[in-house]
Amino acid sequence: MLAGNSIGKEFTVTSFGESHGKIVGAVVDGCPAGLRLSEADVQAELDRRIPLKPEIVSGRIEKDKVQILSGVFNGFTTGAPISMMVENKEADSSDYEAIRDLPRPGHADYTARVRYGGFNDYRGGGRFSGRVTVALIMAGAVAKKLLGTVDVDILAYTRAIDRIKMDKSLSFEEIRRRRYEAAVRCPDLACAKKMEEAIVNARKEGDSLGGVIECIALNVPAGVGEPLFDSLDADLAKMLLSVPAVKGVEFGAGFRATELKGSENNDAFRVQGGKVAASTNNAGGILGGLSSGMPIVVRVAVKPTPSIAKEQRTVNIAEMKDATIRVTGRHDPCVVPKAVPVVESAVAIVLADHMIRAGFIPKVLKERK
Amino acid sequence: MLAGNSIGKEFTVTSFGESHGKIVGAVVDGCPAGLRLSEADVQAELDRRIPLKPEIVSGRIEKDKVQILSGVFNGFTTGAPISMMVENKEADSSDYEAIRDLPRPGHADYTARVRYGGFNDYRGGGRFSGRVTVALIMAGAVAKKLLGTVDVDILAYTRAIDRIKMDKSLSFEEIRRRRYEAAVRCPDLACAKKMEEAIVNARKEGDSLGGVIECIALNVPAGVGEPLFDSLDADLAKMLLSVPAVKGVEFGAGFRATELKGSENNDAFRVQGGKVAASTNNAGGILGGLSSGMPIVVRVAVKPTPSIAKEQRTVNIAEMKDATIRVTGRHDPCVVPKAVPVVESAVAIVLADHMIRAGFIPKVLKERK
Amino acid sequence: MLAGNSIGKEFTVTSFGESHGKIVGAVVDGCPAGLRLSEADVQAELDRRIPLKPEIVSGRIEKDKVQILSGVFNGFTTGAPISMMVENKEADSSDYEAIRDLPRPGHADYTARVRYGGFNDYRGGGRFSGRVTVALIMAGAVAKKLLGTVDVDILAYTRAIDRIKMDKSLSFEEIRRRRYEAAVRCPDLACAKKMEEAIVNARKEGDSLGGVIECIALNVPAGVGEPLFDSLDADLAKMLLSVPAVKGVEFGAGFRATELKGSENNDAFRVQGGKVAASTNNAGGILGGLSSGMPIVVRVAVKPTPSIAKEQRTVNIAEMKDATIRVTGRHDPCVVPKAVPVVESAVAIVLADHMIRAGFIPKVLKERK
Amino acid sequence: MLAGNSIGKEFTVTSFGESHGKIVGAVVDGCPAGLRLSEADVQAELDRRIPLKPEIVSGRIEKDKVQILSGVFNGFTTGAPISMMVENKEADSSDYEAIRDLPRPGHADYTARVRYGGFNDYRGGGRFSGRVTVALIMAGAVAKKLLGTVDVDILAYTRAIDRIKMDKSLSFEEIRRRRYEAAVRCPDLACAKKMEEAIVNARKEGDSLGGVIECIALNVPAGVGEPLFDSLDADLAKMLLSVPAVKGVEFGAGFRATELKGSENNDAFRVQGGKVAASTNNAGGILGGLSSGMPIVVRVAVKPTPSIAKEQRTVNIAEMKDATIRVTGRHDPCVVPKAVPVVESAVAIVLADHMIRAGFIPKVLKERK
Repeated sequence: MLAGNSIGKEFTVTSFGESHGKIVGAVVDGCPAGLRLSEADVQAELDRRIPLKPEIVSGRIEKDKVQILSGVFNGFTTGAPISMMVENKEADSSDYEAIRDLPRPGHADYTARVRYGGFNDYRGGGRFSGRVTVALIMAGAVAKKLLGTVDVDILAYTRAIDRIKMDKSLSFEEIRRRRYEAAVRCPDLACAKKMEEAIVNARKEGDSLGGVIECIALNVPAGVGEPLFDSLDADLAKMLLSVPAVKGVEFGAGFRATELKGSENNDAFRVQGGKVAASTNNAGGILGGLSSGMPIVVRVAVKPTPSIAKEQRTVNIAEMKDATIRVTGRHDPCVVPKAVPVVESAVAIVLADHMIRAGFIPKVLKERK
Repeated sequence: MLAGNSIGKEFTVTSFGESHGKIVGAVVDGCPAGLRLSEADVQAELDRRIPLKPEIVSGRIEKDKVQILSGVFNGFTTGAPISMMVENKEADSSDYEAIRDLPRPGHADYTARVRYGGFNDYRGGGRFSGRVTVALIMAGAVAKKLLGTVDVDILAYTRAIDRIKMDKSLSFEEIRRRRYEAAVRCPDLACAKKMEEAIVNARKEGDSLGGVIECIALNVPAGVGEPLFDSLDADLAKMLLSVPAVKGVEFGAGFRATELKGSENNDAFRVQGGKVAASTNNAGGILGGLSSGMPIVVRVAVKPTPSIAKEQRTVNIAEMKDATIRVTGRHDPCVVPKAVPVVESAVAIVLADHMIRAGFIPKVLKERK
Repeated sequence: MLAGNSIGKEFTVTSFGESHGKIVGAVVDGCPAGLRLSEADVQAELDRRIPLKPEIVSGRIEKDKVQILSGVFNGFTTGAPISMMVENKEADSSDYEAIRDLPRPGHADYTARVRYGGFNDYRGGGRFSGRVTVALIMAGAVAKKLLGTVDVDILAYTRAIDRIKMDKSLSFEEIRRRRYEAAVRCPDLACAKKMEEAIVNARKEGDSLGGVIECIALNVPAGVGEPLFDSLDADLAKMLLSVPAVKGVEFGAGFRATELKGSENNDAFRVQGGKVAASTNNAGGILGGLSSGMPIVVRVAVKPTPSIAKEQRTVNIAEMKDATIRVTGRHDPCVVPKAVPVVESAVAIVLADHMIRAGFIPKVLKERK
Repeated sequence: MLAGNSIGKEFTVTSFGESHGKIVGAVVDGCPAGLRLSEADVQAELDRRIPLKPEIVSGRIEKDKVQILSGVFNGFTTGAPISMMVENKEADSSDYEAIRDLPRPGHADYTARVRYGGFNDYRGGGRFSGRVTVALIMAGAVAKKLLGTVDVDILAYTRAIDRIKMDKSLSFEEIRRRRYEAAVRCPDLACAKKMEEAIVNARKEGDSLGGVIECIALNVPAGVGEPLFDSLDADLAKMLLSVPAVKGVEFGAGFRATELKGSENNDAFRVQGGKVAASTNNAGGILGGLSSGMPIVVRVAVKPTPSIAKEQRTVNIAEMKDATIRVTGRHDPCVVPKAVPVVESAVAIVLADHMIRAGFIPKVLKERK
């Protein structure tokens, strides 16, 4: 599968569709038979992309309606490929013709044009748009349902917007309960308020902000992952870096671990409740590429939205001369809130894949009567 | 290739061998025919792992001698799989029997034992040892030779050890020339001196340090990478996270980009020498997962060596009770210097793979007379 | 991609959908950008499945109408995944409830039930129906269009039905011109008439027939294929055996070669028009798994349709006791005619994949103005 | 893994080495941990390639001695890649320089030269030699040991040499017991005698013979295989066609099924010993690409050895003119006997892969004390 639109080995996702084409779709292959699954399950995840406050997002509010087209029969997965699709209804392509030869800084306009000899669908970023993350949400909905059968639980939330960082330490339960209360998806509501203000201000200035998303996976048993190239962190990193706008990923203490001594960074083992546990979790739940039984903790760096109203320097690529561009149209001043469920879905897909690979989820969930 | 010991789609590497087994080996499949290659080419890369100053490394100095066993005929690659091997000569397994049931904190001892039901070779970390990076070095030597035919050049160097960070901005040429002068592989020699001292001090304390390695790839043409899941940054991240001790990866401005505004982070395009270039490189040479023609810039976080002389708390896993461990034997107080050529090799392998995939390197390098 | 619904490495096909579900679909990933492609191109291939004479086929005549949902923009492929779909309109599931616990001999009813713990969609064979070959036809249409850019031409036709074998030796041109004239897809029209009669007779008896399909690929240059496991014949065999009802495959002289001496079977090389050619083609155009420049010749054995009106012995699987079944509903007395375009498509997909792999088709077909 | 030297998804084999290079080797990745394995196990399989009667084989009698270099510790597999190797001791390259520009008819000399631009190792066929099947034997030895843990048993034997066909119907037990008694690996000893004579006669004439090998796999449970592209027959066909000299493959009744009516070819189900069985086995144990619980039966067509002493017409490829060649050196007049254990190994590898995929073999065979 050289062209890069499929990922996973047991639980695999093939993504297709473009920002301003007819549809965005996903095929999940390898989902075990016998999982109770309905369009409502997937719809619920899609709905989480819809922002609560219009002032912090773009005007394009996609009320995506999922259709499951195959792989589900009488309410259960059959073991056959699950194909899912949403139509693109809100796409307005009129803004893009004007800037066809003016690659937007920070976007894939230029690189995609080079790669595909000008044949790429350039409207709204085409295949390179954040819009295609809808496929991850749909596939992630299946993955989360599947992981639910073995009690694995995944929580992503906003950890920082620009320089506003959430420092408060909340319990998993608090994070779970509150992360969707604030439009910015930060469970520390006081902090969330400041984040919102920062986004509103950036929008007013015709500018944009980035941020950090943290994702925690609970109840992943020890021993999930493969050695070396398919280690759990390697596969999570690959998946997360494939999400548009993500520029970095770290596990546990991550980059901060480089400033710790071994005696500080090592998580001491101890017996707890008859099982091996660790006193701290600088490893982020992964040792040697295998899960340790501690929570998996991963953070991603999301860059500020490249589409900004401010005038920017670029190149007219047809005439090969310097030019300026002012990106009009509807754009999010900060994609972090919308990216939160995407990160959660991405992590779910990788964990579903590796849980099957490690033998913790069977190929048929249970015999049917 | 579910078990995870192979990577790459066109230029692929299969790694095998253990820390204290007979050999460490690699098979490179998919290297174009017609590349001039000798054991000396590979040996030169292996020799770069040998540290200059014994005081900053472990006592285990492996003078690895490579053998190329297939895939090369009359001095050129044939298009058949290239198998390479080094023997493990220096392995001393005596230290490990004593601590077989005491998983070392920060190591894969515990997770590997769970994953493989106790059948794993636990000596020196077995398959999970940093020793297996020798396979990456060997395969990377082939990749670098191949990339040399299209002038792609890759430079890794130490950017930080513990809190000692190289701030000086050096030219590529200076980095290339000086990075191997200092034992710590930092081209800022004043900074390198401080890093060395820090390592020597950590060793005296029975402790260890981590650090940051930066890798720059020059002359990668625009348009290399696949969209989405096989984007260039996703594949680099996967490869780099598979290197033992790496806990984070970031591209260009990376995590720092989360504190920039869009107007600051976007790299403005401009025409330079008749080509599209960018004024800054916050993107690290990658836009939408495709190379932009600017230098590829990636940094990895290397955690402090988990093997330390200080006493640590662990668990006796046979008796399932709390215990302590003092890891004896020869261990690097800081693996960053040794990891520098590994990171370089890892990046080279991914770039060789993607350069072939994007059509910049042909399947046969030239017709032979 | 462990679950088996994807095939190919450069030009890849992911198949989804069931016989009596909503749709049958395919995603083609890895098709080069810049190929002129329209729904009409794909529709033309789908229409070739529609039989000319109702008396030799089932009552289910699917007038499939293709939709291309992504990957094509302004009339050309973009390099993004091409998703295609047809709706299932003619499916009548009423016949299947009655025989749900009575696996039809020769069908996958029993094996699929075991494999998927009873969760499989059993209606009309579900995922195991010949209906899913529509995905191959759609993907094959893209492959054929792509191969057309390098003049590769693929012709499949009926070589035998039951014991009626086409012995006449026709030129490629005659085969091309006449193979679709007869409803049985045999270009020897006298022979075709006998085949038709045999099918009509079998139908009257409530029985069914099998046959042999030959496929010839012209203008494949020498050197296409990979050594060993991905040799051209190995990949063709895999693809063709995945077509329902195919029970054997042979290349060139095939099984007959086992009765020839080396001196008879070896195809002598000779210089012809300044190029290396062969006097005979017992190798079927493949030597050592690589194309030789001679026509690729492959034959497949298609078993008689398992669905027959005659009473058959089976097992009531719910009660685990012997039973009988009479398969009602609309069934082809011989699937060979419908399988002819499927075989052609299957061969086209494998050749498109390998032509890209061997470098004979570029990743972008031409620069666009 | 585009270059084609790896196969399998769970139980994977990477093959390397050339006919006249230093070694032939294999890496098995994905073998479950906890399998008791020694070099003696592999050696026993290698020894089966050694022919009993020198008069029916080439002078090159390779007493291959296997070394296991990784993946086994304390007598058990560890879950890490198992690398194995034999040295090439008997290679005599002197014959090949003279015919370097004269491609041998029926060999890959010409096609490999085109494919690799003349860089291929042409000595003795290099990578395209039957010699590389030693890698299959080694990997197959591991697969057979693994399948033994679930009682799957695989028997290959010679079914025909030239026109001498074994018609006698022997029980599995008789086949198992006698197939290695005769040098030609045919368990019908009277028939074997005639086969031997035919081979001896062909050798005298400077000619060669082909034949048919049948392979039977017993005790494969129902439900093994994936739908569609990774169906069990598709994967077996791919693997078997990758064996040099194989030109066809068929399952169960195979090509003969094309002359049967549906009512004759369908295997009626019946309850036997409380399980679903079939009265006949025309399907060869595979329905819809999934195993049915009946014995898997597959036959391959092996072409006559292309290397013959008789003069043949070829082309001098350097001068591009017609020429003749007389292949000297040591060549088997019939490779069928040597191919018998290769076919058995090939089938074992595919079954091991699919048995793991279907969940019939766990990732760790048992917890170790």
